[in-house]
Amino acid sequence: MASGGENEQVSNKQVILKNYVTGSPKESDMYVSTNGTIKLKVPEGSNGILVKNLYLSCDPYMLDLNNMKNYGASNTDSKPPVTPLVGYGVAKVLDSEHPNFKKGDLVWGITKWEEYSLITNVEGLFKIQHTNVPLSYYTGILGMPGITAYAGFYEICSPKRGDHVFISAASGAVGQLVGQLAKLLGCYVVGSAGSKEKVDLLKNKLKFDEAFNYKEEPDLDAALKRYFPEGIDIYFDNVGGKMLDAVLLNMRPHGRIAVCGLISQYNLDKPEGVHNLMHLLIKQVQIKGFVVTDYYHLFPKFLDLVLPHIAEGKIVYVEDIVEGLELGPAAFVGLFSGHNVGKQVVLVSKE
Amino acid sequence: MASGGENEQVSNKQVILKNYVTGSPKESDMYVSTNGTIKLKVPEGSNGILVKNLYLSCDPYMLDLNNMKNYGASNTDSKPPVTPLVGYGVAKVLDSEHPNFKKGDLVWGITKWEEYSLITNVEGLFKIQHTNVPLSYYTGILGMPGITAYAGFYEICSPKRGDHVFISAASGAVGQLVGQLAKLLGCYVVGSAGSKEKVDLLKNKLKFDEAFNYKEEPDLDAALKRYFPEGIDIYFDNVGGKMLDAVLLNMRPHGRIAVCGLISQYNLDKPEGVHNLMHLLIKQVQIKGFVVTDYYHLFPKFLDLVLPHIAEGKIVYVEDIVEGLELGPAAFVGLFSGHNVGKQVVLVSKE
Repeated sequence: MASGGENEQVSNKQVILKNYVTGSPKESDMYVSTNGTIKLKVPEGSNGILVKNLYLSCDPYMLDLNNMKNYGASNTDSKPPVTPLVGYGVAKVLDSEHPNFKKGDLVWGITKWEEYSLITNVEGLFKIQHTNVPLSYYTGILGMPGITAYAGFYEICSPKRGDHVFISAASGAVGQLVGQLAKLLGCYVVGSAGSKEKVDLLKNKLKFDEAFNYKEEPDLDAALKRYFPEGIDIYFDNVGGKMLDAVLLNMRPHGRIAVCGLISQYNLDKPEGVHNLMHLLIKQVQIKGFVVTDYYHLFPKFLDLVLPHIAEGKIVYVEDIVEGLELGPAAFVGLFSGHNVGKQVVLVSKE
Repeated sequence: MASGGENEQVSNKQVILKNYVTGSPKESDMYVSTNGTIKLKVPEGSNGILVKNLYLSCDPYMLDLNNMKNYGASNTDSKPPVTPLVGYGVAKVLDSEHPNFKKGDLVWGITKWEEYSLITNVEGLFKIQHTNVPLSYYTGILGMPGITAYAGFYEICSPKRGDHVFISAASGAVGQLVGQLAKLLGCYVVGSAGSKEKVDLLKNKLKFDEAFNYKEEPDLDAALKRYFPEGIDIYFDNVGGKMLDAVLLNMRPHGRIAVCGLISQYNLDKPEGVHNLMHLLIKQVQIKGFVVTDYYHLFPKFLDLVLPHIAEGKIVYVEDIVEGLELGPAAFVGLFSGHNVGKQVVLVSKE
């Protein structure tokens, strides 16, 4: 192995899918390989960049992004490709053959679960311009979840002052920001989450009007009626399933539901049935699914709104950061049992 | 009984609910009373009108309008009030104490299932201005179902030329017009219905591109894939339940679903579960329930569009008319088994 110079090969730890996932993902579905090496130089003419990954984002939709469940496969014995997981992250450019990027640039966007990545398709990357905030924020409140919250709330939910807003999985990166945007607009805001610690976070740190632990509510309809005796104008849905069904019973006329995620359904063989769609008609409710990529053009407008609020402490943000790529599989798996408090991030390297 | 003059009492046949409905409505849940009499004069100062009912409209939502299922009742032995059913109809004004109406006016809107009605709340009535069409049309294509089709299609579905449009219960009053409006706009249009006769009607008389009998399709998903190999842009939903679930699997990105009716669900103790809402997210689909009363302001615009097309034969309309109030209960009950071909109307009197 050569050492030093532009031909230097360095070791490159990677998180790799060992076998396709059935049911909920388990730590043992993945492994951390220490065998890999990488040359810290972009091949000439490749139009790519070589980055050092700093922070990786743990997100439920990585199941789909990596085809971790092998949807549509006929051969159930097949093995996944031996390549690192794909996901969102924050990285530093070490070398570039692309005109838009230069050594030293910080970027966020689609990268891989490894120490260093050669990225030949840079379309999924955004350059980081504002570094007076923790860089990890670009996996969350200032990255894809942030623009998801912003677009979902303002573009899909048509919010107005005084609206009664309910957010499920409210302590996640998206939910935290939706709730705070709604509060800033003058809405009444209630969030649900899956532990006492998360509920405390929502009420005390994020200043939601109310919050409850859905796991302690045998009757979700009754819980919603307690917090919304006059009904719900806006539901920002991160979970789907039973909660959506209960919310439908409590919508106000002309209410809006943004379907952002359905984490309760991802690991079921057959999704739960939603029985109360009749209320769409009775209450003239709109439900709309959306994906953030349709709204990336709003990113500058989003930063203009959110950055000053963060600087002034009017918007706060809670992360759950584990240190070391080795802890990545456990952090990812923990999402599905609600283990994390705040946005789950993996710190790969501090710089 | 006095005869002649303004104090004349005449007999007034009425359709009355005998007992609250459980499951699907049956003919025996209603009876036709010939005991009633009415004075053909509006009480002075009542601000009401006295009408002779000409045509009555049979609609599934009459179950709700008349609380025929006694929703929310604690005493299950209770009996319904001994009053005629309420529903939409076309009527002729015989006497008026209201400044907006005069003797001889023709109206459509909320009336009662009886020969003559005293209407003291005229807010639910529209004056008929165009009489060069069959008057019965004002129970359907030119009345509430017509404006429902127009508003649902143009305001909820955001249609454009070339869109792939699917309509369930397509041979009903609403479905017929939605399909023809979509064809006039240059869409590809497929309808489902529940008999060969209705399917023939859709294809041959209403000029849908395709139509199928859902009762002969063991796999609705496969049927939809056959008619929409490239997917569905717009679904005009009159039925809900299993069909909606299958449609969700076949929506194109950014598709729109208007929820207009859920006839498949009205008579179930517990509504069927809809399992495929995940596709709202995957395909960024919008579902919106709506009620026509939010769109009555569009009525003049709607008539401007539809009346010339009817006169030129570019929009046709199929009715299923039974003669005589006595046949009303059977006609209403028949809706729920799909007995009617075209809009179900009861002729009470020809003038």
